[in-house]
Amino acid sequence: MNYLSLTKEEALTELSSLKNEYDALKSKGLKLDMSRGKPGKAQLDITMGMMDTLSSDSDCRAQNGFDVRNYGILDGIDEAKKLFADLLNLKSERIIVAGNSSLNLMYDTVARAMLYGVLGSAPWAKLDKVKFLCPAPGYDRHFAICESLGIEMITVPMTNDGPDMDVVEKLVCEDESIKGIWCVPKYSNPGGIVYSDETVKRFAALKPAAKDFRIFWDNAYAVHDFDVDNPEKLLDIFDEAEKCNNINMIYYFASTSKISFPGSGVAIMAASEENIAQIKKVMTVQTIGFDKLNMLRHVRYFKNTDGVLKHMKKHAEIIKPKFDIVLDTLERELAGTGIASWTEPRGGYFISLDVTRGCAKRVHKLVSELGVTLTPAGATFPYGKDPDDSNIRIAPTFPPNDELLAASEILCLCVKIAALEKMYM
Amino acid sequence: MNYLSLTKEEALTELSSLKNEYDALKSKGLKLDMSRGKPGKAQLDITMGMMDTLSSDSDCRAQNGFDVRNYGILDGIDEAKKLFADLLNLKSERIIVAGNSSLNLMYDTVARAMLYGVLGSAPWAKLDKVKFLCPAPGYDRHFAICESLGIEMITVPMTNDGPDMDVVEKLVCEDESIKGIWCVPKYSNPGGIVYSDETVKRFAALKPAAKDFRIFWDNAYAVHDFDVDNPEKLLDIFDEAEKCNNINMIYYFASTSKISFPGSGVAIMAASEENIAQIKKVMTVQTIGFDKLNMLRHVRYFKNTDGVLKHMKKHAEIIKPKFDIVLDTLERELAGTGIASWTEPRGGYFISLDVTRGCAKRVHKLVSELGVTLTPAGATFPYGKDPDDSNIRIAPTFPPNDELLAASEILCLCVKIAALEKMYM
Repeated sequence: MNYLSLTKEEALTELSSLKNEYDALKSKGLKLDMSRGKPGKAQLDITMGMMDTLSSDSDCRAQNGFDVRNYGILDGIDEAKKLFADLLNLKSERIIVAGNSSLNLMYDTVARAMLYGVLGSAPWAKLDKVKFLCPAPGYDRHFAICESLGIEMITVPMTNDGPDMDVVEKLVCEDESIKGIWCVPKYSNPGGIVYSDETVKRFAALKPAAKDFRIFWDNAYAVHDFDVDNPEKLLDIFDEAEKCNNINMIYYFASTSKISFPGSGVAIMAASEENIAQIKKVMTVQTIGFDKLNMLRHVRYFKNTDGVLKHMKKHAEIIKPKFDIVLDTLERELAGTGIASWTEPRGGYFISLDVTRGCAKRVHKLVSELGVTLTPAGATFPYGKDPDDSNIRIAPTFPPNDELLAASEILCLCVKIAALEKMYM
Repeated sequence: MNYLSLTKEEALTELSSLKNEYDALKSKGLKLDMSRGKPGKAQLDITMGMMDTLSSDSDCRAQNGFDVRNYGILDGIDEAKKLFADLLNLKSERIIVAGNSSLNLMYDTVARAMLYGVLGSAPWAKLDKVKFLCPAPGYDRHFAICESLGIEMITVPMTNDGPDMDVVEKLVCEDESIKGIWCVPKYSNPGGIVYSDETVKRFAALKPAAKDFRIFWDNAYAVHDFDVDNPEKLLDIFDEAEKCNNINMIYYFASTSKISFPGSGVAIMAASEENIAQIKKVMTVQTIGFDKLNMLRHVRYFKNTDGVLKHMKKHAEIIKPKFDIVLDTLERELAGTGIASWTEPRGGYFISLDVTRGCAKRVHKLVSELGVTLTPAGATFPYGKDPDDSNIRIAPTFPPNDELLAASEILCLCVKIAALEKMYM
């Protein structure tokens, strides 16, 4: 049924029937959560073999003989650098292997720029105005870093090829107070978009007005393909930046949070030798070092790129059916209605659903009342404000499959109700 | 032999004999390290039982049922809070359990004050001048945080009861730009001093000119007594501050770095409910959460206060003989010479040696040339500048006992040479 072309009477009849369905669900006292990109229990179980990799004291020696239980080695053990370097096509000497949170590395990187500046620039905290470009819909926790630190956010529209580069280029070249941009270049959060080759090339070739402008390249889903053997290809940002003599412009982040354990993975940052030197100079004041036992656990368990990719297949086998449950439901319930569109990602953790303009908050409220938790409407935009009030982020990975199906059906029901209310009442 | 009352001839004869000894050692190509407070291998081995505490997925459930492998719980799992609360006489609700580094928590706490202010005060980065009081000799990494962030350091003399409180009170009450003081209240680094009851009471009763003045109470060696059954008693700073209605003035830090594994322990911060609320508000932007698997490992392995204290006895059994080796050597070689004095701590990680004024750097150079690494002379003072050039920090825990003996003897030899050179040449 195309909801856009109903008579008022037809619409009200349909709405009444949907509301009956809705009321019937109210009594069920459901409690379903599709709000965060959290792996489900089955995904956590497949990594348990990592737990027993360091049993004896000799297990705790790095390949260079260093006892990783002790203090020392600020930027991570060599074999962990190599694991990430091989997996992500990075140079070992450009990598810092850190603690369990790449978000923490990103926060620290912005905070460091606030307090120390970037390669000799003025500390951002001393400037009247610091701005970041925020492709949106995007990752709410990126935006939260800016908001918390008083950095003004400028929304950049997303296209199917990544951020609208015409807008990015214009703003970055014109405005010296723009110091950064948040990017999730592969399976963007929440759109699942993979930046096109042209987008990556245009990023690498940016000529920012601010010398201390940095691209925060959060490659959170670098190897998180559903079809691990036929992965989406993302052009290498460092290779491209090197061609443009722009290597200092890139801050690169990744982690094993969605490879091993979300709460106890290993995060890395990669940057040019010059950037890394500045970062390490401050980092040596921040900490004596990160948890090297956990790095070594990861190395011993995954061994190499092949080991990681085999592991990612297991994740995909668990995740893909969950995405299918949501996508099948959306297709079955909303295809042809004209009131919703959604992404069909080939990896990552999210489906981005656009509902009728002005209805996302209403949908959120309706599903909440039935016990379904969604990411708050607007969260995927700077300051939590979706100008169209239409985007909803769906995170299919955490709920068991039966709950996911129930939640998806409820979501579709509420999308319909909200749209009909909006259009015909 | 009292070196202070030699004739010039006697002195030169002695010096010549010592130099012969010195030259003989040169050819040995030694490589001995007494520079950092790193536990030795035997200490690392006693905690290996912790490695196998989380083998199955059910092992990974917190007592409230939460799967600690996953995202969530910003401020640490309840049972970890309880372990630290019981051990350190803290209230659970005042504790944040974090990652592997209390130094990182301290850095972040200063950086947070720089960027956000403290409970509504102006961000310190916006002020013309921020100063910290630095009792010295003290911990070089505390001073490095100040130096890195451009905070001016004011040296406060240490007494046998802790920092000179007359100086502290006067400065803190007078100068609003003084925003903090670094304290290692039990077994201070490097003096091994335990703050007296009166010192703690006077800290708790401070009436600082700056409302956002904070005491950084780094209780790094809280349970690190050599005689675990007869520990040195440190008055409880929170209890005392509560009596003075001064509870917001305390930032408290501790960790298991020298209980479990130096590189992979668990660090905590404790503060008033009001402080904790501000910290968590920023922390939720900094990270999704710390490594909860590692917290749970600690809880499962140590179980409770008794478990930790039994473990600390094992550490003491390894460490105490090492301190004795150094102290016996100092006594044998330097007692009665009049050119050196040293501390005899009942716990902690350091011996503080004061040599003849103006000789510490020379001693450092002399031992270096024989292959002995000491903490750089001056490191225990702000800006690395010991006004008397006399303090040397000795860290006995890392070297094997035979190397420690050799290094101690070399140190004494060089202390004598430097003193004789200074006084008689």
